[in-house]
Amino acid sequence: MTFRTVRWLDGSAPAVRLLDQTRLPGEEVYVDAADVDTLVSAIRRLAVRGAPALGAVGALGVAVALAQGAREGWDDARLHREIGRLRAARPTAVNLAWAVDRVLPLVAEGPAAVLAEASRVVAEDEAANRHLSKLGADWLVAHCPPRPLRLLTHCNTGTLATTAWGTALGIVRELHARGAVELVHVDETRPLLQGARLTAWELAADGIDHVVQVDSAAPGAILRGIVDAVVIGADRIAGNGDTANKVGSVGLALACADAGVPFVVAAPWSTVDLATPDGTGIVIEERDTAEVTSLAGVPTAPAGTRAYNPAFDVTPARLIDAVVTERGVAEPKRRPDMRPADVRPAEPAAPGRTTP
Amino acid sequence: MTFRTVRWLDGSAPAVRLLDQTRLPGEEVYVDAADVDTLVSAIRRLAVRGAPALGAVGALGVAVALAQGAREGWDDARLHREIGRLRAARPTAVNLAWAVDRVLPLVAEGPAAVLAEASRVVAEDEAANRHLSKLGADWLVAHCPPRPLRLLTHCNTGTLATTAWGTALGIVRELHARGAVELVHVDETRPLLQGARLTAWELAADGIDHVVQVDSAAPGAILRGIVDAVVIGADRIAGNGDTANKVGSVGLALACADAGVPFVVAAPWSTVDLATPDGTGIVIEERDTAEVTSLAGVPTAPAGTRAYNPAFDVTPARLIDAVVTERGVAEPKRRPDMRPADVRPAEPAAPGRTTP
Repeated sequence: MTFRTVRWLDGSAPAVRLLDQTRLPGEEVYVDAADVDTLVSAIRRLAVRGAPALGAVGALGVAVALAQGAREGWDDARLHREIGRLRAARPTAVNLAWAVDRVLPLVAEGPAAVLAEASRVVAEDEAANRHLSKLGADWLVAHCPPRPLRLLTHCNTGTLATTAWGTALGIVRELHARGAVELVHVDETRPLLQGARLTAWELAADGIDHVVQVDSAAPGAILRGIVDAVVIGADRIAGNGDTANKVGSVGLALACADAGVPFVVAAPWSTVDLATPDGTGIVIEERDTAEVTSLAGVPTAPAGTRAYNPAFDVTPARLIDAVVTERGVAEPKRRPDMRPADVRPAEPAAPGRTTP
Repeated sequence: MTFRTVRWLDGSAPAVRLLDQTRLPGEEVYVDAADVDTLVSAIRRLAVRGAPALGAVGALGVAVALAQGAREGWDDARLHREIGRLRAARPTAVNLAWAVDRVLPLVAEGPAAVLAEASRVVAEDEAANRHLSKLGADWLVAHCPPRPLRLLTHCNTGTLATTAWGTALGIVRELHARGAVELVHVDETRPLLQGARLTAWELAADGIDHVVQVDSAAPGAILRGIVDAVVIGADRIAGNGDTANKVGSVGLALACADAGVPFVVAAPWSTVDLATPDGTGIVIEERDTAEVTSLAGVPTAPAGTRAYNPAFDVTPARLIDAVVTERGVAEPKRRPDMRPADVRPAEPAAPGRTTP
C-alpha cells in the first residue's frame, strides 16, 4: 500500500498528517494537525486509532505542541498542560502515554531533538511489526495443522493501526507471503466497523481471501471447527499477560479456550505495561451512546435509547495462548508473566513505563 | 401493548395480517397476506420472525392456502406443494413445520376445521408463554441474588416474536411485575438489529429500564460481574437440550459458564424437537451477504466484500443451566435430556414432531 497512516509535515507550522479513518473505505481524506486541539480531536473521534499508531501520534504530537508553543508564546506550564491533554486523549491504549513520556525528556533540548526521537519511535514501530510478524507466523505454523490456515481477526491491526505493516494483521500478511493462509474471517467490529471498513479494505488490497461476519458469529464459527486460530492486537498488556483490546476480544478467547483453538495476541513491546500487574488495574474507556444507537447517521434504536458502550474489554491471561512482541513470544496460559525467560527483560525508563 | 404480531382477517379473500417488523421502530405498517407467495416472502425477509410467531403463521397459513386454492381451483397435489413451500420457508425454527403438521390432518375436514385448530395454536401459544414466564421467573429468583436483577437478553423474544407476551422477554416482564428487575442489557443483535429495534421498543413501552449494547460487549459485561443472568429464546431445542437460537447465543453461554452466571433458554414446548437427538442434526440457515455488508442501505464494507452470515448458532446442552417451557424446567447442564422427571413426556404426533 502506498498511503501512510501517520506522517510528519515540515514547514512554518509543522503538522502531523493523518489519514482520516472515519472516512474509509469510501474516501481517502487527510487531516493536517498543526495544533494540539486538532490532534486531540482527531484521536478522540478515531480519525487515527490503533495502539501503535497512537504511539507515533503521541511522539510526533509533542513536536507539534512545541512548534505551536513557540508560535503562540506559551510558557512552560502551558506547554506541559497541552502535552498532558495529548497524553490523556484516550485512556486505555498505553502506547500513547508511553510515547509522550519517551520524548518528554528531550523537550529541554529543543524541537530538533524531540523530532529526531519521535522519528525513531515511528521507525522502530515498523521494524518491531515486521519482526513480531515473523515470530507470530513461526509460532502459528508450529501450533496449527500443516495446511493453509483459516484465521479469524477482530478490529483493525494492519497498516492503518500502526505506522506500517501491522501487528496481528502483520502476522496474517507474513503467513500469506508464505502461502499459508486459506481464508480470513473478519469480525465487522461494531460499533465503528473497523473490521468491515478497514481490515477488509487492507486484505482486499493485498489479495488475501476473506469474509466479513457479524461479531457474534465468531464463537459459533470457532466451535464449529471452521477457524484454525484467532489473532488479535492489544491496547494494553498487563504484567501478568491480561490484555485490554477492542470490545469483543474476550468472547473470542472464551470460544478458543472451549474449542482448543489457539488464541494469539500481537503487539509491539511498547504495549506491555509492567507497571500494571493485572487487568483489574486497566481503565476501560466508555464512549458515547450515539455510536451504538446509530450507524452512518441512520438510527438503529428508538429515539432516547441509552447504550452501554465500553470501547474495550480485558481478556484474562489464562485464556491467552501466546503474546507475540518483537522481543519474543510469551505464553500466558502456561505462565502468567510477561517477563519469561524467552522475552528479554526491559530496561526501566520513565517511571511506570518501559522502553523497547 | 395494543398491537397484534399475527392476526386472522376473515373475508372473501381471508388473510393473515402481519405487523411488518422490518419497518419497526420507525413505522407501524401491516402486511395482509392472502396468498402463499406473500406469506413465504414475508417469512423470508423477516417481516414476521421469532419461532413461536412462525408457528402461528404456519398454522394460519394453511388456512390461507386452502382459501387461495378454492379461489384458484388448485388440485390436491398443488395444495400440498404450496403448503410444503410454506412449511420450508425457514429451515431452522422447528415451530413453523410443527404447526403446519399439526393442522395438516384437518385439511380433509375443510377450512373451518383448519381455522379452528390454527386458532387453538395461537391461543395455546399465549397461554404457554404466560405460564413459562412464571416458571422461569421462579427459577431465576431461586438461583440469583435476592435483589432486583440485572438481566441480559439477545434478539427479540417478546410479543413481536410470539402471538403475545413473549418467552425470554416474557420472563423479564414477569420479573418486572414482581419488582425484581433493575436493568436489562439488550444486545443490538446484528445483522438485523432485532434487539436494538424491537426489544428496546417493547421494553420502553413497558417502562422497563434498559441499555442497548453491541453484541460483542456482552461477554466482557458478564465477566465483569454486572449481569446476574442471561435469558434467551430458542428456534429449535434438540432432545439432549442443545439449542439453536439467533447467532451470538453460544458466545453468551460461554461467558456465563466461565463467570458462573445462570444461562436460561425459554421457549414453548413446540420448540422442542425430540426427533433431533442433538445439535449436530440441526440445519443452520445461511443468509445473504448484503445483510452484513450494508445497514439500512448504507454500505458498511468495501464493494464486493463477501460475508459469512449464519442466522443461528447452536449452544451445547453442557452450557445451559435451564430450559424453561410451559411443561416445566429442564436443567441440561446437570442432565442432557429434555424428558426429565419434571417435564411431562410428550405424545408422539406427526413423525419426527411432538405436539403439546
